[in-house]
Amino acid sequence: MDLQYPLELAGTFVFAISGALAVRDREHDLFGAGFTGFITAIGGGSLRDILLGSYPLVWIGDVHVLYAIFGGILAAFFFQRFLLKLRKTMFLFDTLGIGFFTVLGVEKALSLGVSVEIAAIMGMFSAVMGGVLRDTLTNEIPILFRKEIYASACLTGAILYLVLNHFGLERDYNLLISMSVVISIRMIAVKYKLSLPSLD
Amino acid sequence: MDLQYPLELAGTFVFAISGALAVRDREHDLFGAGFTGFITAIGGGSLRDILLGSYPLVWIGDVHVLYAIFGGILAAFFFQRFLLKLRKTMFLFDTLGIGFFTVLGVEKALSLGVSVEIAAIMGMFSAVMGGVLRDTLTNEIPILFRKEIYASACLTGAILYLVLNHFGLERDYNLLISMSVVISIRMIAVKYKLSLPSLD
Amino acid sequence: MDLQYPLELAGTFVFAISGALAVRDREHDLFGAGFTGFITAIGGGSLRDILLGSYPLVWIGDVHVLYAIFGGILAAFFFQRFLLKLRKTMFLFDTLGIGFFTVLGVEKALSLGVSVEIAAIMGMFSAVMGGVLRDTLTNEIPILFRKEIYASACLTGAILYLVLNHFGLERDYNLLISMSVVISIRMIAVKYKLSLPSLD
Repeated sequence: MDLQYPLELAGTFVFAISGALAVRDREHDLFGAGFTGFITAIGGGSLRDILLGSYPLVWIGDVHVLYAIFGGILAAFFFQRFLLKLRKTMFLFDTLGIGFFTVLGVEKALSLGVSVEIAAIMGMFSAVMGGVLRDTLTNEIPILFRKEIYASACLTGAILYLVLNHFGLERDYNLLISMSVVISIRMIAVKYKLSLPSLD
Repeated sequence: MDLQYPLELAGTFVFAISGALAVRDREHDLFGAGFTGFITAIGGGSLRDILLGSYPLVWIGDVHVLYAIFGGILAAFFFQRFLLKLRKTMFLFDTLGIGFFTVLGVEKALSLGVSVEIAAIMGMFSAVMGGVLRDTLTNEIPILFRKEIYASACLTGAILYLVLNHFGLERDYNLLISMSVVISIRMIAVKYKLSLPSLD
Repeated sequence: MDLQYPLELAGTFVFAISGALAVRDREHDLFGAGFTGFITAIGGGSLRDILLGSYPLVWIGDVHVLYAIFGGILAAFFFQRFLLKLRKTMFLFDTLGIGFFTVLGVEKALSLGVSVEIAAIMGMFSAVMGGVLRDTLTNEIPILFRKEIYASACLTGAILYLVLNHFGLERDYNLLISMSVVISIRMIAVKYKLSLPSLD
């Protein structure tokens, strides 16, 4: 059974929710919240595909991806109180999302014939750039630049996928292992407030 | 007589003026003002065409569009006092601009064979993303996120155009009606300070 | 002997350093600094090529460009104290960088068959947009909007290159002259704190 497509839709759905709820504390109207959810959900994959010149973009070519986004935005509107109580659940979904999109981004880049270095970068971009765009639009410091390990977890997972792929590990195992590594690094980093050193 | 092309040039001209004058109160030099006018004028259409993979971009393929932008920037420089007294006139032009670019964006997207959902989004993006880029570059909160109805007026007009188009209304009437709806919503919203509710 | 390629790699290397060191005073970790260096190095050229629809992007198609970026980021990490003492040297390198990328951007645009107006704009975009993206991501006021002449030096050099090219000046001389003009304008502007007038 192929889990990739339903997982991709689920990841898109969750990213749209997290984007729409991100603007909650500010003076944004419902439309602004929906717009932010939209940008968050499409940002990473769109940037990856524009950089690689791969058309049509996923959400433009596949209306189901669009419905997943609209569904996420509507869920954010109708269940905001419930979802915000579930902050830990939302964090879990977001973390699942970046884990999955990292690996998906690497695979898509490889399928377009780029070098492994580019594939690793594209995996990370797919996962984090939606959030970076969201934060830039809402005048926040991009999540990338905040304390806990975030994008570096994605880059680590992307590189691991490429290494295991190089050594011939079967795709399904590789996908599972690399995703789990992204997710584990991120969760441990947040739980123990781990961060990389900074330039002093 | 075909009004589309002259109207497109006029809309581009007005967007360039509004972008160049937007940075007036800040410590920007003439070049920075011109640059901002340029980004405002090309932003929405460029983003639409990059997302759709439609090349060449309008302002790159048609030097008259470029001249309309330069004309707008020069007008902002030489007639700024006059134009700022005309603030209501400028608001009117900007509103005409978003009305027209919304419908134009929908039509361009449809002509490239995308779904109606994507066409509606592209209509709105064409109209508002130049202003969003302008505000992001100048560290303002994007116009999209401010109080009065703005992008949602464009999305409404885009959807209306698609509905009327679906029911076979002749293009010229449809263009006029849908544009008028965008413009009316925006003007009424500003006059009566109407805004959508926000997530609380 | 063809100096263009080594110079392009050197310019990319220096832009990566300047981007990585730009975030030094803030709460960015090593990864955030590297990410910013990366965006600074690829931003201008990538935007130019995406606007022109020219694929693959330089850093995606040529792994040596990628290595130049990684080298710059590593140099910023290991030699930051030394490099920051060399602030004047860094300024010199950045200025060499914008001079060279301006001319390179003009040439690339011309080779893709665009008009001279577009070629001039693309020369300037190649040189300055990496820095604009860096500043937008880190919530700084873009360098473009700060006091001293910056992007206008690049535009002047780009136009000069096109004029001299029109009158048949041999490419190597033209490249040298136009680069020198960009560099001279920028250095004189910083030394004497020259700026363009602003809209009042």
